[in-house]
Amino acid sequence: MLSYDMTKNGSDSLYHYLYKCIKNDVLQGTLAAGDKLPTKRPFAEHLGVSVITVENAYAQLLTEGFIYSEPRKGFFVADIAEKLKKSGLAATSSRQNFPESREAQRISAPDDLPPRFQKLQSRARSKIIADFTSNQSETSAFPFSTWAKIMRKVLCEQQNELLERSPYGGVLPLRVAIAKMLKGSRNLDVSPDQIIVGAGTDYLYGLLVQLLGFNKKYGVEDPGYSKISKIYRKLNVVCNFIPLDEQGVRIDQLEETCTDVVHLSPSHHFPTGIVTPVSRRYELLSWAAKSSNRYIVEDDYDSEFRMVGKPIPALQNIDVQEKVVYINSFSKTLASTVRVSYMVLPRSLAEKFHEEFSFYTCTVSNFEQLALARYIGEGHFEKHVNRMRNFYRHRRDALLSAIRKSKLRDFAAISEEDAGLHFILKINTALSDEEFCNAAKEKGVVIGALSDYYTQAEPSAHQFIMNYSAVPEKQMPRAMEKLYEVVKSIS
Amino acid sequence: MLSYDMTKNGSDSLYHYLYKCIKNDVLQGTLAAGDKLPTKRPFAEHLGVSVITVENAYAQLLTEGFIYSEPRKGFFVADIAEKLKKSGLAATSSRQNFPESREAQRISAPDDLPPRFQKLQSRARSKIIADFTSNQSETSAFPFSTWAKIMRKVLCEQQNELLERSPYGGVLPLRVAIAKMLKGSRNLDVSPDQIIVGAGTDYLYGLLVQLLGFNKKYGVEDPGYSKISKIYRKLNVVCNFIPLDEQGVRIDQLEETCTDVVHLSPSHHFPTGIVTPVSRRYELLSWAAKSSNRYIVEDDYDSEFRMVGKPIPALQNIDVQEKVVYINSFSKTLASTVRVSYMVLPRSLAEKFHEEFSFYTCTVSNFEQLALARYIGEGHFEKHVNRMRNFYRHRRDALLSAIRKSKLRDFAAISEEDAGLHFILKINTALSDEEFCNAAKEKGVVIGALSDYYTQAEPSAHQFIMNYSAVPEKQMPRAMEKLYEVVKSIS
Repeated sequence: MLSYDMTKNGSDSLYHYLYKCIKNDVLQGTLAAGDKLPTKRPFAEHLGVSVITVENAYAQLLTEGFIYSEPRKGFFVADIAEKLKKSGLAATSSRQNFPESREAQRISAPDDLPPRFQKLQSRARSKIIADFTSNQSETSAFPFSTWAKIMRKVLCEQQNELLERSPYGGVLPLRVAIAKMLKGSRNLDVSPDQIIVGAGTDYLYGLLVQLLGFNKKYGVEDPGYSKISKIYRKLNVVCNFIPLDEQGVRIDQLEETCTDVVHLSPSHHFPTGIVTPVSRRYELLSWAAKSSNRYIVEDDYDSEFRMVGKPIPALQNIDVQEKVVYINSFSKTLASTVRVSYMVLPRSLAEKFHEEFSFYTCTVSNFEQLALARYIGEGHFEKHVNRMRNFYRHRRDALLSAIRKSKLRDFAAISEEDAGLHFILKINTALSDEEFCNAAKEKGVVIGALSDYYTQAEPSAHQFIMNYSAVPEKQMPRAMEKLYEVVKSIS
Repeated sequence: MLSYDMTKNGSDSLYHYLYKCIKNDVLQGTLAAGDKLPTKRPFAEHLGVSVITVENAYAQLLTEGFIYSEPRKGFFVADIAEKLKKSGLAATSSRQNFPESREAQRISAPDDLPPRFQKLQSRARSKIIADFTSNQSETSAFPFSTWAKIMRKVLCEQQNELLERSPYGGVLPLRVAIAKMLKGSRNLDVSPDQIIVGAGTDYLYGLLVQLLGFNKKYGVEDPGYSKISKIYRKLNVVCNFIPLDEQGVRIDQLEETCTDVVHLSPSHHFPTGIVTPVSRRYELLSWAAKSSNRYIVEDDYDSEFRMVGKPIPALQNIDVQEKVVYINSFSKTLASTVRVSYMVLPRSLAEKFHEEFSFYTCTVSNFEQLALARYIGEGHFEKHVNRMRNFYRHRRDALLSAIRKSKLRDFAAISEEDAGLHFILKINTALSDEEFCNAAKEKGVVIGALSDYYTQAEPSAHQFIMNYSAVPEKQMPRAMEKLYEVVKSIS
């Protein structure tokens, strides 16, 4: 059994001393992951302390994640090193990562970590030079002080609203602010009544399936985010993969697969960067007009970060037949701090929603709704997006420059560099996409292939997706050098 | 066309002056709900100002909810009086209101309301003496200052965690805090890995259906919250209504309806207050053990507010066959300010969830997860619940006393007064439940009947649900007097 000299507690309380001793042993590796901690009563007797002391120490360790409990078995040492390592490899933030779906669960580091623990953390992370599959936002870029001020105001000035039940579609000030923002940024004329606020797009897709019907056939872009098709399949509806041509989804394929509802990102397709031209947009609308079952879900995620020229007008803009549901999110622009998305329903669907779904509770807290309403209404959101666009443009330019200055340039071609937050790097290599990605990872560069995003359609190989939003500029030259080494190793 | 003397703007900017003129006309009723506002360009010409001035004024009015826009039609005056009246009648907060499902969308009052507008508001509200269908929380009872302190700490000290993608099940510190809390308050031994955090129970029910299967037959309590069955039906699954006896749901009815998954609140049934005894609990578990398809969803909503004795042990406590999914929420205890619920999956289901659903994004913002983790971890939550329990006990006692002191006492019998936040008032009256509720409402007392919560089972009449949590104590004697008047008017 573990032994500590409990008389050496100094000024610490006994439980705190015991907690520190065990924590230290976990961090030093004396206690390994999975080791069972002694049962409380005999352990207390052994140490000459009360059971309460042991209980309190275990509770503290549990809270901080150093140990975990198994029902009817006891307490065990948590796998902290492994978790830290994982989080170093995959400090990812958003949905662009889906081929690597298993996400790292980062353990929350207690405030008072001893130096060795911090070293462990940095060692695990230092292996990675650059992660081009992550699109985590920059901490330094988040408007913490503005956000803090607004939250304080909401807490002081809107206590009644904070405690009132939110309408199912979201509080009115937020819906008004979103409507106004959509008018300004996307030239969309929508009434607050058409807007449904929800906790993330995943949730809103589920709500849409309930609204449009489980008996409809849904279609997603191929290539595209695999997450979207996964969600439709988990919702137990038919989900077809619709191949793209250079203008976006193929109408003939929509007809052939008998798709009713097609889920698109016409202004900013990921990962190809395709922008669907107006002609195809009208073709899509006339496809939808042919049956009352047909709808288009316009997923406008990321459209704020188009790097060149004006944002592409939304499909919803030219929809006169009430066929387009527009969806967007604040989670990209404000990161995981805030989980707020929204959809704009055509009037007829909005009426159906209000009639049949008003019993639902809005999934976003009043607090975040009211804070976000102020944040948008007072102009901070627009400023933040502009600032972030410049920030990311700078990153993109740094990466393009790093490529041009490296030896990789003779083996690489860049495309879709205006698409926003990523571009496509075509590399002249004999390696398969999988081999290339693995070799790059060995050298500390995490990179994903375009072909990973194809499900049924035939992908073209040797194209890689460069998400640059999370890669510090100073790492870029070395990362490009490493990619060159991979290319060179085989040629 | 509307006319204002734009030279009288004094020190106001032109747009602000125009905004004030129109707002005033809306509040005075000169401009009625639905009135179309003049088109911008001719209106600007008419007033002798620029189009930008009109645009800015309209935008401000739109933001504050005085007008709304219709795509391709223009701007119209919003129905403010109606909305205020509605909000006065139905300042409701939680799911106990579902027979009155259409919820009021309270317009957010701008800061600088003229006195007439405020009068309008108080007049609409003054009609209601007491609303026993509402269970809105008390503003005064919410721990605003503690919450503000914790939020500040999170914003200052946890900036990195705020921007990191949360694991799909929730951030580890929150799951650890919930596990510890469940150990303390419900004696449940669960590992943080079994906990899935989500934005409200509505959302979690949907997730559960995805996990357990759309092909399963679900069963809900009859009587019960109508919302739960509505959700299952919107999710396109079979939903059976299972009648209760005095111990809870009837096992023979589960068998007869071929129910696979039964959704229960065994510790605190709404609205009857039934507590399912241990014998029936074991019967339920053996019913579930008979097939691998069978599961029990234990919805433990409100169990914190049992007024007498210790909380009833959870069904999950005695489940050794991994058949019980435990669900609870912080939305009742912390009100709409925070929208956080969680479910505890049995180990086998938790494994399935982690394998198949890890691509989902957690629906609760990091900010609220981290703040709530601290709030629980630092002991504030437990204190708050204890304080609220005392607060509500005091309210309950005041209402019981008001009944005893009123003439209503000779026509009334009280039951289930320990159930928490509501009790049943049986009234000796010849009126039907609907007639009684309508007559009471006429006199300013909003009250709901037990029979409203029955779907297929045969209800007993003349029983009314007294949600006392939102009724100020000073209103209670007068409200009881009014109910007595209703009784007397017919006898």
